[in-house]
Amino acid sequence: MNSKQRSHAKLLFTPGPLNTSRTVREAMLEDMGSRDDAFIHIVSQVREKILKLAVKHGSEGFAVVPMQGSGTFAVEAAISSLIPKEAKTLVLINGAYGERIFKMAQKMGREVDAIRSSETEPISPEALQDFLDAHLEVEFVILVHCETTTGIMNPIDEVARVVSDEGRRLMVDAMSSFGGIELDLVQCPVDVLIASSNKCLEGAPGLGFVVSKKDLLECSESNSASTCLDLYDQWKGLEKGGQFRFTPPTHVILALNKALDQLEQEGGVSARNIRYRANHKLLMAGMKLLGFQAVITPKLQSPIISTFYMPEDPKFDFNKFYQLLADKGLVIYPGKLSSTECFRIGSIGDLRSVDVQILLDAIEGVLETMGVCLLN
Amino acid sequence: MNSKQRSHAKLLFTPGPLNTSRTVREAMLEDMGSRDDAFIHIVSQVREKILKLAVKHGSEGFAVVPMQGSGTFAVEAAISSLIPKEAKTLVLINGAYGERIFKMAQKMGREVDAIRSSETEPISPEALQDFLDAHLEVEFVILVHCETTTGIMNPIDEVARVVSDEGRRLMVDAMSSFGGIELDLVQCPVDVLIASSNKCLEGAPGLGFVVSKKDLLECSESNSASTCLDLYDQWKGLEKGGQFRFTPPTHVILALNKALDQLEQEGGVSARNIRYRANHKLLMAGMKLLGFQAVITPKLQSPIISTFYMPEDPKFDFNKFYQLLADKGLVIYPGKLSSTECFRIGSIGDLRSVDVQILLDAIEGVLETMGVCLLN
Repeated sequence: MNSKQRSHAKLLFTPGPLNTSRTVREAMLEDMGSRDDAFIHIVSQVREKILKLAVKHGSEGFAVVPMQGSGTFAVEAAISSLIPKEAKTLVLINGAYGERIFKMAQKMGREVDAIRSSETEPISPEALQDFLDAHLEVEFVILVHCETTTGIMNPIDEVARVVSDEGRRLMVDAMSSFGGIELDLVQCPVDVLIASSNKCLEGAPGLGFVVSKKDLLECSESNSASTCLDLYDQWKGLEKGGQFRFTPPTHVILALNKALDQLEQEGGVSARNIRYRANHKLLMAGMKLLGFQAVITPKLQSPIISTFYMPEDPKFDFNKFYQLLADKGLVIYPGKLSSTECFRIGSIGDLRSVDVQILLDAIEGVLETMGVCLLN
Repeated sequence: MNSKQRSHAKLLFTPGPLNTSRTVREAMLEDMGSRDDAFIHIVSQVREKILKLAVKHGSEGFAVVPMQGSGTFAVEAAISSLIPKEAKTLVLINGAYGERIFKMAQKMGREVDAIRSSETEPISPEALQDFLDAHLEVEFVILVHCETTTGIMNPIDEVARVVSDEGRRLMVDAMSSFGGIELDLVQCPVDVLIASSNKCLEGAPGLGFVVSKKDLLECSESNSASTCLDLYDQWKGLEKGGQFRFTPPTHVILALNKALDQLEQEGGVSARNIRYRANHKLLMAGMKLLGFQAVITPKLQSPIISTFYMPEDPKFDFNKFYQLLADKGLVIYPGKLSSTECFRIGSIGDLRSVDVQILLDAIEGVLETMGVCLLN
């Protein structure tokens, strides 16, 4: 492996923070005053660009509210602010991120219920339909679009249809899919979408955002017990003078603005999706040839991140495997399944097929070094 | 004014985000995996460097817990986590930041009281003593070290002595003073200090942190109703594996690490304090010569940010004044006093006397352009 062939000093095959382009990072070389017109203009541009990505037609019914912190901060802001204190919420869970949302809502004292599926199975729209039929008091449903625990895709169109037909509200954690997988909040009826700057948008981490129907925002005053994570106050502040209430991560926002331009230059979400799928296909084919087994069945697997069973060969030591790859500047990701030993490899960020091939070559070499052969 | 003489494209005379050095910004040109050993090591270094700044001797009794978001996020995390739900808190208020803390504690449902002073007067240790004598149920006292509303310095040594002698706990919002004004949490007994990456530490915005006595952290489990702002969980996560629970702003942390090194290279807080005081003295002398009047009396005024009365000359239009300076790449700051028309100018960040002189020359020119003469 020659580092000159690589696009980055380190290649991050993770669910984020990811590789960003040099151009995106260079946008962070400028200091801006957060209350200065020039910066206010950029914030407004970023909000508009995200809105355009989320809604093709009918965007006037939606607003984008960015929130300082990681994507999880935006999730907490959305739950604590947009769901009235007494409303009952149903969380659809098939992984750690759904579980986190459930616990978060509980911790803030909300009435919350759950449908739990196996981590290797998608959410069932039929089970949801039955639950909603039996529980008319449920007002909000929360779904994780791509469960980063495994990389499984949940059937968002079917779920959205059920929720919409039943007259309930749908909140979608699209953290690891937004910008990488096409989704239109009107065509696929979603009331609230949450994502962040540093996944498929390929910006730097430090900012989450909520795309919400305005009618929900409008009646969300005083719902949140948190000052910082109060989405209503944040929205009102931005609408009033274009400014954040509290210091925003100016450099991260400059990077996101540039990253959104690069997404458009690439050809939008559909073009980025093709690149990610090419990365992913190459990864899966290469890993299979090396003898690794995927946890998720191909038709349910997202092109975002993939989970592999830990090989049973006693000579395979994951920490050593991870470290030998890291020594070559190749960063993979530990597993998060509750009951199965596994590890993950991402295919998103500023990565191309050549980067995936570099990883595959390195994995082959590391297996040799460890004396592991996974092929019978 | 020749832009080549200037250290930055824009000079930010604000309370933050501020000018950072080119070296600090260039540290953001690297993408790192947040769960990778190399990054974990940097997080641990940043926490150690901040601890060393806050406590000279006896630091083993304290821990540094960084928090994603702005400084206010760290303030909310500290209040919601370190103050038990039933404990009574007293907030010492002489400006908007103290007021915000009071409202934030109220919003999260805490029992909170206040002593309010005029925005142009420091907090009175005598009034505090009387209040604590009369209110034995108050367990926590919160003070803003330098009230950024005006730039007034509060008498932290006297306040800390009263609180400590009375056996209560002291939490200090040192947002705009930490790194620019010497403070040792043992010598001046403070239980909890809160600050952020982007003020006198001269890093990029996106991270706050709490320096807390460990005994307080240890009994803070489950106090916070927030998941993201739960300081106990954040601390435990960092202590266990060195990792943030939720995606940290990796680039901002790389910048902060570099900024902390630059603070040491400059000669530490005492040297930085001298530079800031030189900036401030020059600013005050120059503004006085131009006919502006300071709101805060010199002996109470911090070298961080200064407030000036809005000139009464009807030809003086602040928006125009601000914009004409902004057009020259010089960013000043609006006022925040509740009853008096004023504006603010900061003297912190990667600025030197030459930058202040550039600003003073520009202000003189802008006054001429506006046809304003403030001298009788």
